[in-house]
Amino acid sequence: MNDGMPDLRAAEARSNPLPRTLTRRVEVGGVPIGAGAPVAVQSMTNTRTTDVAATLGQIGRLADVGCEIVRVTVPTREALSAFGSIVSSSPLPVVADIHFDHELACGAIAAGAAAVRINPGNIGSFERVDAVIDAAGSAGVPIRIGVNAGSLDKGVDAREDLSHPEKLALSAVSFVRHFEERGFSDIVLSAKAHDVPTTLETNRLLSRELPTIPLHLGVTEAGTLRQGTVKSACGLGILLAEGIGDTIRVSLTADPAEEPVVAWELLSALGMRRRTPEIVSCPTCGRTEVDLVSIADEVTRRMATLDKPITVAVMGCVVNGPGEARGADIGVACGRGQGLIFKGGETVRKVAEADIIDALFEEIARLD
Amino acid sequence: MNDGMPDLRAAEARSNPLPRTLTRRVEVGGVPIGAGAPVAVQSMTNTRTTDVAATLGQIGRLADVGCEIVRVTVPTREALSAFGSIVSSSPLPVVADIHFDHELACGAIAAGAAAVRINPGNIGSFERVDAVIDAAGSAGVPIRIGVNAGSLDKGVDAREDLSHPEKLALSAVSFVRHFEERGFSDIVLSAKAHDVPTTLETNRLLSRELPTIPLHLGVTEAGTLRQGTVKSACGLGILLAEGIGDTIRVSLTADPAEEPVVAWELLSALGMRRRTPEIVSCPTCGRTEVDLVSIADEVTRRMATLDKPITVAVMGCVVNGPGEARGADIGVACGRGQGLIFKGGETVRKVAEADIIDALFEEIARLD
Repeated sequence: MNDGMPDLRAAEARSNPLPRTLTRRVEVGGVPIGAGAPVAVQSMTNTRTTDVAATLGQIGRLADVGCEIVRVTVPTREALSAFGSIVSSSPLPVVADIHFDHELACGAIAAGAAAVRINPGNIGSFERVDAVIDAAGSAGVPIRIGVNAGSLDKGVDAREDLSHPEKLALSAVSFVRHFEERGFSDIVLSAKAHDVPTTLETNRLLSRELPTIPLHLGVTEAGTLRQGTVKSACGLGILLAEGIGDTIRVSLTADPAEEPVVAWELLSALGMRRRTPEIVSCPTCGRTEVDLVSIADEVTRRMATLDKPITVAVMGCVVNGPGEARGADIGVACGRGQGLIFKGGETVRKVAEADIIDALFEEIARLD
Repeated sequence: MNDGMPDLRAAEARSNPLPRTLTRRVEVGGVPIGAGAPVAVQSMTNTRTTDVAATLGQIGRLADVGCEIVRVTVPTREALSAFGSIVSSSPLPVVADIHFDHELACGAIAAGAAAVRINPGNIGSFERVDAVIDAAGSAGVPIRIGVNAGSLDKGVDAREDLSHPEKLALSAVSFVRHFEERGFSDIVLSAKAHDVPTTLETNRLLSRELPTIPLHLGVTEAGTLRQGTVKSACGLGILLAEGIGDTIRVSLTADPAEEPVVAWELLSALGMRRRTPEIVSCPTCGRTEVDLVSIADEVTRRMATLDKPITVAVMGCVVNGPGEARGADIGVACGRGQGLIFKGGETVRKVAEADIIDALFEEIARLD
């Protein structure tokens, strides 16, 4: 960053402005989680695991949009065979998602999983859970304990003296205690629900009861693209703003490649991490004299391939435009059929509306 | 709601579970704001105000998606003439958005504005602001004092001893004090910035300094559809979860009709207000045996016209599907090429994949 960008330096100085709960550090295939490490972005493939090429293709696309850890389901022996091939060619650490069958968990560890995710409540018995713990311990592989509102232990679920978040937290805490009693502490914990209030209350309880265990946050079954984006952004955002959460997954019923994009937008919005440029663009109103939505959409599209964490302003009027554009690294304030391009607080060019986008990106290229 | 829907009753019982700061009550064209009233959803037209038909058309579309108060810019005398026609035919209370010219503010009040929004800092002098205050007072019309990070008072902006949120809050507080000293207390206050950390800190300061003044929340110039949705959902969500905020506007550089939809998704996610059905749908994974994204998208589309605040689950696998679907009012858990439809915890039908959506909506229709 050069001297012409005072505001971005300020933005970087305030990175991680939020109080982070001091959890233990766990490494998943070299990606640190907890103990103040940057909040890691996760996603999950939805291809058939037995289709190695399709799964690796999707992992590649997830990596392109900033996914840092990927989870792959291993539901069968055939999937386990494929899993080994996936792990050995994946550009990202691969977590095996296991339900019901502890032998698949042990097999995934042997096949090179960076971690395994199990719900101890559906593995069948503590003896079987212990077999997974021991295999992970020997291999030095972390386990994510994943408790889910949809598959609570029946005994806990039946207790009428507990709220739903208390049931989820109690399940999670009792599993963690069991793991620790067996000498295994390489744990990441998640307790997911599909509604935000349960997600908030459960994770607050977990953070209070287990302050050293890194938490994986997510709102599960959050819905399609828009609803899932809103639920994840507010649910995860509220917790992260409280200093709770060490890694996140945004769950969407959509192309998985949408998930890391939303996750990064969230971390960027909170001032915690930034991966791509941010656009500051006004909502337009009856004062707007240019086709600002088209300009902003095109700027966003062109910025997506730019890995400079700068702030670009696209403003549609003279009321707030120049003031806001001054605060960005670069910006344009549009009047009637023309634009004023600003950089580092100085007007650098006045261009016709048709030339705004090209001129803006010419100036962005000069920011190097 | 009938006896078969225990979870929805629980959801309704927990409506407004968040501590609401006890602000004064202000009414904008009959819509209450503050004092524990439901958080009102606002938006703003981006048509030319002089085009009465286009503006009324857009207001109609905003009303259709749940907008409760609409703001219209009045930048000129010509716009003011049109504004009167818009107000008299609008299905929603109309707030006049005024910059620079106090005579336009007074004219808008005379023309029947439900409220006026001014930034006292750009009206020119306190004498001119006082003319607006007196006109509003005589007409019984509230004023939104709207301070904006992009147009701060130069004297305040120059102070090096204050942080940016402190400058915004100081501007806002001094304006409110002036209004109150003149005997006018029918105030809604907003202080908007384009970044979430400034938005959070500024509104926390305002809530602490002015606990009785209703706050209008928004992240301004939040960006295009996805980025703006994420920034608004986390920024506004964090404040609402802290009990701060009495009315909201989601700002998007997009069709204004997207804004109330996101606002309602947010209020629904937080358990504060619900307008349309909610979908609970899983993110799909390698275990999914049906085309769940298409099914969930189609269910979402069909639900949009349904004004029952029910929860519909669309689940793609046997692991969490049945458990989650039981918690919804109605749901489907999909296996290989077929679906089990649940209602109130009971399986009601087993249907082929092609019939899932029709069968689901047949059962939803029977929920009346």
